[in-house]
Amino acid sequence: MIKDQVRTQTYRNAIFRNRDRIAGKVVVDVGCGTGILSIFCAQAGARRVYAVDASDIAIQANEVVKANNLSDKIIVLHGRVEDVEIDDKVDVIVSEWMGYMLLYESMLGSVIIARDRWLKPGGLILPSFATLYMAPISHPDRYKESIDFWRNVYGIDMSAVMPLAKQCAFEEPSVETINGENVLTWPHVVKHVDCFTVTIQELESVSTTFKFRSMMRAPFHGFAFWFDVQFSAPALLSFSNNPQASYFGTLENVIDTSQSKKRANPSEALVLSTAPEDPPTHWQQTLIYFYDPIDVEQDQLIEGSVTLSQSKENPRFMNIQLEYASGGRSFVKQSVMR
Amino acid sequence: MIKDQVRTQTYRNAIFRNRDRIAGKVVVDVGCGTGILSIFCAQAGARRVYAVDASDIAIQANEVVKANNLSDKIIVLHGRVEDVEIDDKVDVIVSEWMGYMLLYESMLGSVIIARDRWLKPGGLILPSFATLYMAPISHPDRYKESIDFWRNVYGIDMSAVMPLAKQCAFEEPSVETINGENVLTWPHVVKHVDCFTVTIQELESVSTTFKFRSMMRAPFHGFAFWFDVQFSAPALLSFSNNPQASYFGTLENVIDTSQSKKRANPSEALVLSTAPEDPPTHWQQTLIYFYDPIDVEQDQLIEGSVTLSQSKENPRFMNIQLEYASGGRSFVKQSVMR
Repeated sequence: MIKDQVRTQTYRNAIFRNRDRIAGKVVVDVGCGTGILSIFCAQAGARRVYAVDASDIAIQANEVVKANNLSDKIIVLHGRVEDVEIDDKVDVIVSEWMGYMLLYESMLGSVIIARDRWLKPGGLILPSFATLYMAPISHPDRYKESIDFWRNVYGIDMSAVMPLAKQCAFEEPSVETINGENVLTWPHVVKHVDCFTVTIQELESVSTTFKFRSMMRAPFHGFAFWFDVQFSAPALLSFSNNPQASYFGTLENVIDTSQSKKRANPSEALVLSTAPEDPPTHWQQTLIYFYDPIDVEQDQLIEGSVTLSQSKENPRFMNIQLEYASGGRSFVKQSVMR
Repeated sequence: MIKDQVRTQTYRNAIFRNRDRIAGKVVVDVGCGTGILSIFCAQAGARRVYAVDASDIAIQANEVVKANNLSDKIIVLHGRVEDVEIDDKVDVIVSEWMGYMLLYESMLGSVIIARDRWLKPGGLILPSFATLYMAPISHPDRYKESIDFWRNVYGIDMSAVMPLAKQCAFEEPSVETINGENVLTWPHVVKHVDCFTVTIQELESVSTTFKFRSMMRAPFHGFAFWFDVQFSAPALLSFSNNPQASYFGTLENVIDTSQSKKRANPSEALVLSTAPEDPPTHWQQTLIYFYDPIDVEQDQLIEGSVTLSQSKENPRFMNIQLEYASGGRSFVKQSVMR
């Protein structure tokens, strides 16, 4: 994932832009992996960086730190944030915790634990906010390739295979890259996460109702989910060290976002976006396709609700309960992201 | 896999070219899947086709047969070849049984069982022969992308991560598409399978020794494996109905193949090839990379042995034991295809 240039470059920019809040301070890198974010923080002048990772990658991170002569600044801690000990109080938490669809296998829980254990009041968390979006999409090429193919295979009618093909292709959420033209409406905010205040309970089940109006006449094939994370706008934070104030400041940005595809003032906050219209990342988008497309007219209403929750079958899995209605018909689709 | 046009089109050609041996005859399609090969056989004039599949896809195959009004010709049997009953003796077995690297999760065992249970003496098996090849390869781009990347990441020396990166990238065999330019020598035949005579015992462990001379100076990154299958050359089969005779006839072709990249006389037998120089298929090639490349000179000897055998850990897995020596150094690499 370090090879995802959009990701790594945005983190690097975010850390360097926040140099005045990092220089001379104590940083924790939650889930440090190979340690690259810790090194960026050291380069930005951090007095001390605690690089924490529960997996054996911590051993390599320690070697990387040594090879770059940063052992006096970066302390690699091989263990879970629940278990490792840090004597300092920390000024900054940096973490790349986001999973597919933001919340799938996300490490946000570890960031919350680190925050509650170590972060000084008024401390900085990078990224500071995260927003999960959804929108109806049309993707005729994908549908055609997966399903319509069976209508005629070398002159043979194989449409009897189509129900099975639909099940194979569309039962589970699919991580793939679509583009702006596939999206039928402005996105809806499924969940806005304020990293300064979010609780673990708040993430156990996420629910929202949505109402879209299709911007065009098209076959509506399913919903796409994507997210962005914001690295606190320095301008907003300088008004107040109160996280609540910066929260509302940033929320306005988010509301703006839901009304226009491009952010009005990108200079205010640095955003790492995984939206279809932005450069692709390893997170791509997560698609939930219907078994059969719904033909929608321009301005046709699409409404319903979605609930994302931990699977009882396996806590690593995510259940996605979708209810949606359009053109007088209503549907339910339950998917599991495994 | 039906979407692999090289595969489906070659089977279709093979069946239609053998029309004189199929028309009016009884065919078994082993592992019929959606039933497309059975339908090709019916189109080629088969009197009766038994389409056998142990998986639930047989239910769809039966629907496809009905939708194409072929229920009087094609009998779908939902079960294993060991268990289903066919009253007829059969003239032709058709099957698409080949796995990655030919033998990984291959269904050749089912073809052998079907042959021994039902095939008339002198009957036809399509494909008739299969050959697994190997050759040393050079693939600097892949190596660079996976490993050299870590030498310098945003100006940071991350080479401490390289041993782990090598292990992640190169521990297990990798199914990918290379091309003719990656191949350093003519290929070596690891195993030639005569579908008329092969036994299950013969497939349990396959061993060969090899001796290559590099055709160029290059970094030698590993070995590639690929296969082809031949659909009996009608010319050869018309000389004799004795499978042994056709075996030797075809083997000469195979020996030719190992000495020139392109077959001398492609009109003699129809070949479905998964070689790097041929159009890509869903089988691609199987690569076993070394952790570190070996720099070889032009004409430098590369020798050693390879053994492919069922894993004791899990009978589905395949162990690949490679011993190789070049430039006075020798190496051992054990991989598991899971």
